[in-house]
Amino acid sequence: MSDISEQWQADLSDLRREIDAIDQQVVDLLSKRQKQVEHVVALKKAHNLQVYHPAREEDLISARRQQAKEAGLCPDYIEELYRIIMRRSRVEQTDQMAVKAVKPGATVLIVGGTGEMGRYFVNWFAGAGYLVRSMGSGDWDNVAALCEGIDLCIISVTIDRTPEIIERISPYLPPGAVLTDVTSVKKAPLEAMLKAHSGPVLGLHPLFGPTTSTLDKQIVVATPGRDDDACQWVIDQFSLWGSVIVMSDAGEHDEIMEFVQSLRHFATFAFGQFLAAKKVPLARTLEFSSPIYRLELGMVGRLFAQDSALYAEIIFATPERRALLKEYIGSVSKNLEMLERGDKAEFEQEFEKIALWFGPFGEQAMRESSFLIDKLIERF
Amino acid sequence: MSDISEQWQADLSDLRREIDAIDQQVVDLLSKRQKQVEHVVALKKAHNLQVYHPAREEDLISARRQQAKEAGLCPDYIEELYRIIMRRSRVEQTDQMAVKAVKPGATVLIVGGTGEMGRYFVNWFAGAGYLVRSMGSGDWDNVAALCEGIDLCIISVTIDRTPEIIERISPYLPPGAVLTDVTSVKKAPLEAMLKAHSGPVLGLHPLFGPTTSTLDKQIVVATPGRDDDACQWVIDQFSLWGSVIVMSDAGEHDEIMEFVQSLRHFATFAFGQFLAAKKVPLARTLEFSSPIYRLELGMVGRLFAQDSALYAEIIFATPERRALLKEYIGSVSKNLEMLERGDKAEFEQEFEKIALWFGPFGEQAMRESSFLIDKLIERF
Repeated sequence: MSDISEQWQADLSDLRREIDAIDQQVVDLLSKRQKQVEHVVALKKAHNLQVYHPAREEDLISARRQQAKEAGLCPDYIEELYRIIMRRSRVEQTDQMAVKAVKPGATVLIVGGTGEMGRYFVNWFAGAGYLVRSMGSGDWDNVAALCEGIDLCIISVTIDRTPEIIERISPYLPPGAVLTDVTSVKKAPLEAMLKAHSGPVLGLHPLFGPTTSTLDKQIVVATPGRDDDACQWVIDQFSLWGSVIVMSDAGEHDEIMEFVQSLRHFATFAFGQFLAAKKVPLARTLEFSSPIYRLELGMVGRLFAQDSALYAEIIFATPERRALLKEYIGSVSKNLEMLERGDKAEFEQEFEKIALWFGPFGEQAMRESSFLIDKLIERF
Repeated sequence: MSDISEQWQADLSDLRREIDAIDQQVVDLLSKRQKQVEHVVALKKAHNLQVYHPAREEDLISARRQQAKEAGLCPDYIEELYRIIMRRSRVEQTDQMAVKAVKPGATVLIVGGTGEMGRYFVNWFAGAGYLVRSMGSGDWDNVAALCEGIDLCIISVTIDRTPEIIERISPYLPPGAVLTDVTSVKKAPLEAMLKAHSGPVLGLHPLFGPTTSTLDKQIVVATPGRDDDACQWVIDQFSLWGSVIVMSDAGEHDEIMEFVQSLRHFATFAFGQFLAAKKVPLARTLEFSSPIYRLELGMVGRLFAQDSALYAEIIFATPERRALLKEYIGSVSKNLEMLERGDKAEFEQEFEKIALWFGPFGEQAMRESSFLIDKLIERF
């Protein structure tokens, strides 16, 4: 820093002041924009219009990309900024629309409403203006009164207790009430509901936890049971909250979840288990690492920041799941010999066979994860 | 859409036009901002100043957060936008600074310069204005001429051939030339370089592949060998390109890489191997999944979109690595009994023990990955 020319230092300060002034104007404009968006929401709400308007969003993006090109800016850069700006506006709109009920005046009973997930649903349904009753394990003396006149009963208890609770509560349900559960397996609960209740039945599996602050684009799997028309408003309510509904039958759902939940979480568990056993110096490994390792290690750390009972339940839920995991351990162990021989050629052959099976998904994954790695670099 | 009041439709159109006008002004301002940043770069370049100025960036973020609060905007939202704006400006600055050589006029020989990683370094060094020579396996007849008068020799060949190539080329190197390698193990190459060459020696491990378009915040591990002062300019060059340099000794580096590279990639390989064996319907599982599963499956797919030989090398590089992987398989297999008994309590106990070991890292991982999940939702 010796030999500093005072003139260029002053120039640099001037430039920085100008940049600061520009940034202030940008934030001012974003604040104005938010106010206009609030007016749009008020209009939409008054006229029962959907918040999310994909075509309008894409038009807006195209216009900004075009303008970026003309101004000598990178269009991807401007698109990236505008995706955030629009998501912000969507989340705010959804938050304000959340108070809207698809079936105004309906009464909803949440069984297990004192649990974490139960309380979450209590909040959402109450927020939308439904009459919500919450039932905990100490409320069975009062079950008849709690069930009287309800339009929807949501069973939100642990997987292993779900069939028993369904059987116990069903005699008290009004025949026209929709009965639904929200566990992560669907076959057994759906069968139990169809057996115990003669009215409308719907299996739901919301693929998010109680820490999710917005339902925007969150997935809910719906497995129809009986009288789909009578159940439709429940599905519509989740749609209005911004969720994406995936229709499936209970058998397909359960098979897919064996992989998506049980296998995946078990593999992550086993990896973290080994890191802990070897006392790997996590912080130092992060200093030595590419952003993608940070991401992968984060996925492992994330698991162990959550509830052990929840994961025990997910992993051990069904005999099918446990059998799959045993198969997985067998599959991992098959590589022992190859490692003992240090057989690179065999590894490459096996690798290429698997790559072929992954096919175009590999390329897509590469693109998506590269995008996320950039995000990670940006932030940390 | 029946019974549309024309007045509110006109109001909605007006509001949207106003939002469009605001957005146009935002993009105009960002274009002006970019021009000012270009002036800053020109000044910095003329006065040999570093591009990246963390304190200035944090000041700027704080000022914008404060302004956001005052304007009734969410500060995190504005920070998110400004992280992108600043990264953009950093990348542009780094791109323009890349043409600058720390040691102008120096000659660099890349051994293995015809390979993917070799070509990558050829481009970077040539782009910075160095005189670059590239040597492939067919150039040994010409080795004396290629080595004549060079200031830096970078060995960029596969791990298993690195020691042999070092031994073969060293007699031709000028005694004052810096000798370095860029493989992902450091102990053996560093020993080979110190033995074969009497001049400055430096081990490097760039933690990125040849598809990385910017070196901004990319990590390079440097393991000093001999005559650090003479090697410093090579490290400075990577710093100027935006890389983060992590100093380590070869032993520590290799131990950490056993986990960061070998174990991690093997675990991912074994997971993909099982998905392929079970022919899991990938596309359908994605429809059923939370964004975090998409992310995790993407990490697996990503591996198989890459070079099998590279991963064979990383995984099988040393006997220590293979021994660690065998230990890992043993550790995974230990869970078999627990699964056979369906022992949830044991799982929970083990889970909590591991969670305790992960400690605050779990919480941090939760925050980081939640941020990325939001990004993923935004985009897909």
